[in-house]
Amino acid sequence: MLDQIVFLAAVTILGVFEQAYFSLQVIAARRKYHVQPPSISGPPEFERIFRAQANCSEYFPLFLASLWVAGLFFNQVLAACCGLLYLYARYLYFAGFAESSKGRLGPMYLNAGILWAMAGLSSVGILNFLLLHYLKVNILRGIGQLFGL
Amino acid sequence: MLDQIVFLAAVTILGVFEQAYFSLQVIAARRKYHVQPPSISGPPEFERIFRAQANCSEYFPLFLASLWVAGLFFNQVLAACCGLLYLYARYLYFAGFAESSKGRLGPMYLNAGILWAMAGLSSVGILNFLLLHYLKVNILRGIGQLFGL
Amino acid sequence: MLDQIVFLAAVTILGVFEQAYFSLQVIAARRKYHVQPPSISGPPEFERIFRAQANCSEYFPLFLASLWVAGLFFNQVLAACCGLLYLYARYLYFAGFAESSKGRLGPMYLNAGILWAMAGLSSVGILNFLLLHYLKVNILRGIGQLFGL
Repeated sequence: MLDQIVFLAAVTILGVFEQAYFSLQVIAARRKYHVQPPSISGPPEFERIFRAQANCSEYFPLFLASLWVAGLFFNQVLAACCGLLYLYARYLYFAGFAESSKGRLGPMYLNAGILWAMAGLSSVGILNFLLLHYLKVNILRGIGQLFGL
Repeated sequence: MLDQIVFLAAVTILGVFEQAYFSLQVIAARRKYHVQPPSISGPPEFERIFRAQANCSEYFPLFLASLWVAGLFFNQVLAACCGLLYLYARYLYFAGFAESSKGRLGPMYLNAGILWAMAGLSSVGILNFLLLHYLKVNILRGIGQLFGL
Repeated sequence: MLDQIVFLAAVTILGVFEQAYFSLQVIAARRKYHVQPPSISGPPEFERIFRAQANCSEYFPLFLASLWVAGLFFNQVLAACCGLLYLYARYLYFAGFAESSKGRLGPMYLNAGILWAMAGLSSVGILNFLLLHYLKVNILRGIGQLFGL
């Protein structure tokens, strides 16, 4: 059974390390710009790094949920590849936002696109499972046959 | 095995879409009230929408954890129904908070109640499993017999 | 199958209750220091409690992810024990931060250490599983033999 989730688990732990890295960047920025907790206001350079990390944290549960549902109900390897791409786009987002407010925009759209894709795969996977399980209809195979696969 | 989690997965992905909707509302509010990232201060209308989304995000992992544990250890369908109710109450909370600070209160209590219920079901389910597995005692059946079920 | 996750589920729900307790502390602090939502600024006493809760919330998904992957791929009981220790250290962190900014430091390092340990166990467990599954090499048994276990 574990072989059906091992790549999802690997991407999950990679994501945990990435979030830990973002947190360490915020701690470094607090020291560099002399912003003592509990304050979260400071020079724009600090606030951008702080917001970048907060935004990545906020989306992390959405990312994990989509990754696992897509992996379990659609395809593990495809979900794990989307997950790797998402984590890479998150890195670009963090680095871009730390640079300038505008720098976050490109990676932000990329992140959103990958997340929508994973949520879409999840939805198709769940729908296919429900139809197959309760109505004995396999839409994924049907779509494949349409394209001669 | 997937049939034991398919409704939990469906509610999870619905929750992901709801959180994505809340995020889009914050982006729209940033444009409407001219609050550029990384700033999170602005007119009360903006701050209410921002806080509503932040609060929903903060509770999302607690919601998912309770949903899945209740679904796996108590009853999948009951947990999924609680989950749907929770997501509906979250929508009311977001809409109410966007309207006024007071408008969040009713749905907030509803949300909290459902979350406590799911955490309670989870606790009973885990306790029952541990007793059944290690002491061969089935408290859920015992309670059912007390009520003549 | 549930017996392979029951302790992870129990620690997860305990964590949900702990987070709920932190949230109730913030609500109490909002009343005590008269900070009406959506505002998040107030006297330092309020801001410390608010930041303590926000920080615990932010790390909660990282904690759950590491707990479950370590429990599934390394060892459930060891992961659950690390999880209990983490939740205890989080309590110390919250209480310490509510007291003073300095008071959060000791527990913060403890928390970070336990989280790194769980992420490390997860990584070793996944690596071992991949090697065993695809290359038929068991590194964990090899390390045990090195130490004569």
